[in-house]
Amino acid sequence: MKKVGIVMGSASDLPVVGKAADRLRELGIPFESHILSAHRTPLEAAEFARGAREAGFGVLIAAAGMAAHLAGALAAQTTLPVIGIPCGSGKLGGIDALLSTVMMPSGIPVATVAIDGAANAAFLAAEILAVEDAELAEKLRRMREDAAADVLKKDAELEL
Amino acid sequence: MKKVGIVMGSASDLPVVGKAADRLRELGIPFESHILSAHRTPLEAAEFARGAREAGFGVLIAAAGMAAHLAGALAAQTTLPVIGIPCGSGKLGGIDALLSTVMMPSGIPVATVAIDGAANAAFLAAEILAVEDAELAEKLRRMREDAAADVLKKDAELEL
Amino acid sequence: MKKVGIVMGSASDLPVVGKAADRLRELGIPFESHILSAHRTPLEAAEFARGAREAGFGVLIAAAGMAAHLAGALAAQTTLPVIGIPCGSGKLGGIDALLSTVMMPSGIPVATVAIDGAANAAFLAAEILAVEDAELAEKLRRMREDAAADVLKKDAELEL
Amino acid sequence: MKKVGIVMGSASDLPVVGKAADRLRELGIPFESHILSAHRTPLEAAEFARGAREAGFGVLIAAAGMAAHLAGALAAQTTLPVIGIPCGSGKLGGIDALLSTVMMPSGIPVATVAIDGAANAAFLAAEILAVEDAELAEKLRRMREDAAADVLKKDAELEL
Amino acid sequence: MKKVGIVMGSASDLPVVGKAADRLRELGIPFESHILSAHRTPLEAAEFARGAREAGFGVLIAAAGMAAHLAGALAAQTTLPVIGIPCGSGKLGGIDALLSTVMMPSGIPVATVAIDGAANAAFLAAEILAVEDAELAEKLRRMREDAAADVLKKDAELEL
Amino acid sequence: MKKVGIVMGSASDLPVVGKAADRLRELGIPFESHILSAHRTPLEAAEFARGAREAGFGVLIAAAGMAAHLAGALAAQTTLPVIGIPCGSGKLGGIDALLSTVMMPSGIPVATVAIDGAANAAFLAAEILAVEDAELAEKLRRMREDAAADVLKKDAELEL
Amino acid sequence: MKKVGIVMGSASDLPVVGKAADRLRELGIPFESHILSAHRTPLEAAEFARGAREAGFGVLIAAAGMAAHLAGALAAQTTLPVIGIPCGSGKLGGIDALLSTVMMPSGIPVATVAIDGAANAAFLAAEILAVEDAELAEKLRRMREDAAADVLKKDAELEL
Amino acid sequence: MKKVGIVMGSASDLPVVGKAADRLRELGIPFESHILSAHRTPLEAAEFARGAREAGFGVLIAAAGMAAHLAGALAAQTTLPVIGIPCGSGKLGGIDALLSTVMMPSGIPVATVAIDGAANAAFLAAEILAVEDAELAEKLRRMREDAAADVLKKDAELEL
Repeated sequence: MKKVGIVMGSASDLPVVGKAADRLRELGIPFESHILSAHRTPLEAAEFARGAREAGFGVLIAAAGMAAHLAGALAAQTTLPVIGIPCGSGKLGGIDALLSTVMMPSGIPVATVAIDGAANAAFLAAEILAVEDAELAEKLRRMREDAAADVLKKDAELEL
Repeated sequence: MKKVGIVMGSASDLPVVGKAADRLRELGIPFESHILSAHRTPLEAAEFARGAREAGFGVLIAAAGMAAHLAGALAAQTTLPVIGIPCGSGKLGGIDALLSTVMMPSGIPVATVAIDGAANAAFLAAEILAVEDAELAEKLRRMREDAAADVLKKDAELEL
Repeated sequence: MKKVGIVMGSASDLPVVGKAADRLRELGIPFESHILSAHRTPLEAAEFARGAREAGFGVLIAAAGMAAHLAGALAAQTTLPVIGIPCGSGKLGGIDALLSTVMMPSGIPVATVAIDGAANAAFLAAEILAVEDAELAEKLRRMREDAAADVLKKDAELEL
Repeated sequence: MKKVGIVMGSASDLPVVGKAADRLRELGIPFESHILSAHRTPLEAAEFARGAREAGFGVLIAAAGMAAHLAGALAAQTTLPVIGIPCGSGKLGGIDALLSTVMMPSGIPVATVAIDGAANAAFLAAEILAVEDAELAEKLRRMREDAAADVLKKDAELEL
Repeated sequence: MKKVGIVMGSASDLPVVGKAADRLRELGIPFESHILSAHRTPLEAAEFARGAREAGFGVLIAAAGMAAHLAGALAAQTTLPVIGIPCGSGKLGGIDALLSTVMMPSGIPVATVAIDGAANAAFLAAEILAVEDAELAEKLRRMREDAAADVLKKDAELEL
Repeated sequence: MKKVGIVMGSASDLPVVGKAADRLRELGIPFESHILSAHRTPLEAAEFARGAREAGFGVLIAAAGMAAHLAGALAAQTTLPVIGIPCGSGKLGGIDALLSTVMMPSGIPVATVAIDGAANAAFLAAEILAVEDAELAEKLRRMREDAAADVLKKDAELEL
Repeated sequence: MKKVGIVMGSASDLPVVGKAADRLRELGIPFESHILSAHRTPLEAAEFARGAREAGFGVLIAAAGMAAHLAGALAAQTTLPVIGIPCGSGKLGGIDALLSTVMMPSGIPVATVAIDGAANAAFLAAEILAVEDAELAEKLRRMREDAAADVLKKDAELEL
Repeated sequence: MKKVGIVMGSASDLPVVGKAADRLRELGIPFESHILSAHRTPLEAAEFARGAREAGFGVLIAAAGMAAHLAGALAAQTTLPVIGIPCGSGKLGGIDALLSTVMMPSGIPVATVAIDGAANAAFLAAEILAVEDAELAEKLRRMREDAAADVLKKDAELEL
């Protein structure tokens, strides 16, 4: 199976990004994670993205806050799908990171998930890899069933 | 090749969504398009998404404005990747559609692109299909090269 | 008297939604509450709403946060009045949930109350049931009188 | 059948509010409309709301823009359900009117619909009156069917 | 000297509004304070404003949060200047109260100060009363001098 | 009677500010108007404000757009009441000017009216001057009556 | 004198950016302008910035809209001051470009001017070059004098 | 070397502004810091800026919150580059200070950095002084290298 690359712009994003790693592990999807900044290590970030397809990656996930350029910077260097997680750090609750991540110009898309939505970044990466992987698709389907069952169990137990 | 499904919530979204179809045609990617509303035809929309993988779809694109639930409603019914285009209709410039599309709860991701970003929705769909399709990946790479060449040509001609 | 159906998208919404239940109890209005997610259990949520009128419900209340589709998803399946409570969970203070709940397309209204406005959701449900129920209307009128008296008492005691 | 009262804060709101009147006429629901300002004619507005139940009204609809107090001012004087339409006039696209209408304090709910959402205000009023009126509920159900059929017809004709 | 009337919509606004009272006391300006709600006690609030000029008030200050209608409701009933303090209670940091207070329609102004800006509401009231009161104007001038001296003292002591 | 000083930051604000002058003329209030920029002519603006009380002004009105500092710059130099009109020029609809005008620090209030609310700036100035001027207060009261009569006339003629 | 480098992300930004060129010409400051995209030609943009100091540039100006990464991408590659112009293109009036440009992480500043503020970008570039250039500083001083004189002339001619 | 002037509007901004002083010290850049308010000590603030070039300053940094006029008020009095730090104090997270600082009218630029971005204000000041100072430019280059090395070290140690 192709690997998922998780890149975060700063070590301070780890608490958010960790949830993406957890979900990928649960799904048995191989991944590799890096701290690479679009602004402090732009060449290394670009190089990583440029070589990502060759290196066996199938999807990249990029997490950054404030003027969050990381996902766009990676997307500019690869035609692999790049998923952007806008981090809710800073004083504006993440609306800055959301707009910086999602409002990409024509030609260079970033698949943006919710502010701090690291778990969904992992699920989206899995869905992308599952397009041609029936076994992974089946795992995802079962995870959805479990999530639904969990909601229905809580519904059954609800006392209000 | 797997098909792309384009779904829009209303016929009024056609001018925006048409650009996605144009790009898919240029890339030689088969697609099927529908008008299905999360609110006016919820059952049909759900049924379409539930059967999409079986019907040969690889990715879904959903375009809607205002309280834009369509992408999320499709995503709730399939583990195929669903790309959301928030349409900038209405009085708020599309910030309502953007938040309604991107801020999805854990477990049900929507790969959100820019407000009215239909071309990028198509490119993202292509990137997803290209994860396991070297020929399509090569086409995307060449499109990027052409876009870069176009920028450099305009740069060379720039008189300011 | 017809019942009120209270539906929340997640057990984490209970602290907010509990206030709606408290108010309905005070007013002697029968209600039934459920945890049902527009995204994790879309079929069950749709089915609940579709059968709600038959099951003796007169009004539905739906509480959800972020890309809050629950109220709209229920409204799409019933012609009963659906009241939406946008929950202020998440990083944006609930403005995402507010826009996702209130900006509904023509044909499928959601009666939206304030962010975390669960008490008012209950009062609004009561007002709807009181349109044809003079006794309940009288109870509501007296509650208003009590609230006014409480303000005037605090005014009388005010020392500034 | 109980009447619907439509109140707008200014004659300039007529183009928006007219759609509510059109829908009520289609549904055969009697209504009465007024121009009454929470700020220019506060006493008349209050008096209208205070006497509304007695005068045979079942629901009130209030439309206003900017610092839109009209719906709240009516709601403060009656326990009838009051539906608020935030008008998108002014320089801010109606977000001012939306927040002024929906963020009501506990005890005095306003059932808020979308910015300029006059048609949905009418549909919501109809749903409220239909709680105890099976014939009207049936009309609403058929309207929904027609709307769905219209979407499906457009879907069938779609050429993209 | 004419009195200042301080009105707050709820006892929970006291911590904010208290600062206005403190400043008026420092300036030796007589004031009277009330808890009166535009929504829970609309008649009493209207009556208070209608009789305010006769009762010896020169300026009214109104503090309220969320859909803050209080200042506008008082302004609708008097031609005395009404100062609005938007309270930063609620989930949106007070932007709802600010817009609800300041975006008044033509004819009924509210002199709006900053979110939670109770001290400035008092200073503004004093400035209004000082238009025809040289002694009070002189007091305000000296307060400004003291504030400037305080800044310059802190500047002189600054070690960075 | 004391004069009103109208200051605008740029000649381009004239179409907005003209409405303030019209209303003052209707009310028979003497005024003087200036173009003075907080940024391009800071000394002249400061000097004007510093000498305003001596020069017979009772209230100042300041209109500016974008980073609208004019009202605050005048307020910093006088203890006369300063009314700020945030102009809705620029790309953000005036929210920048509103926040720049209203969010003043403690000690230096600006009485802010709505975006482009020049008429209300004039009415507020009149209300301030009318605190000690019974005749002007009576004029304002009659203007309110006329405005109310106008609403009621439109209400009587309303056909919907 | 060192040159100013003007870079825009797209030829569509020319109408905005042209004003920066006009001002630099008026001030007699040499400049060179380019169309280079952070996303379509990331390597060329990076290379330009990396070599800019050697190539005789003293300041860079970067103009881009939506998820405006260009200024940050250049700043990441040079220690020359980089001025960012957020372009007001797109559906959100430029608030997306503003936040994407200004909210830079520690270590890589972008000197951000107003939305579409190209003239000020040129003036700021001139001020930077004038830190060590008394003649240019004098030119800027005289321009300010002319601007002030222009305001005062308009003030003198004002008829309201 | 020319000095940097750091001005803050209030002693309460010290925790934010202190980081600018720290960075300047690390870079060996002389600076002088002041507390001067655009509103409480407008004359002193203006005088400071007017004499700044003569007094040996090369760049000014101004930090203020809410209706943050300080940077603009200084910029109005000098043709030295003025860097604005919008402080995130107050209820709105600093969006008010950001817009008040950055949206300056043509002719008077403020080089705005991120909300609470004091470190970047210092780096930007250093970049400006380094335009004609090769040694300082080299120091900045090495700081960037160190920052990059730090990211790469954290990347190498990352365990996820």
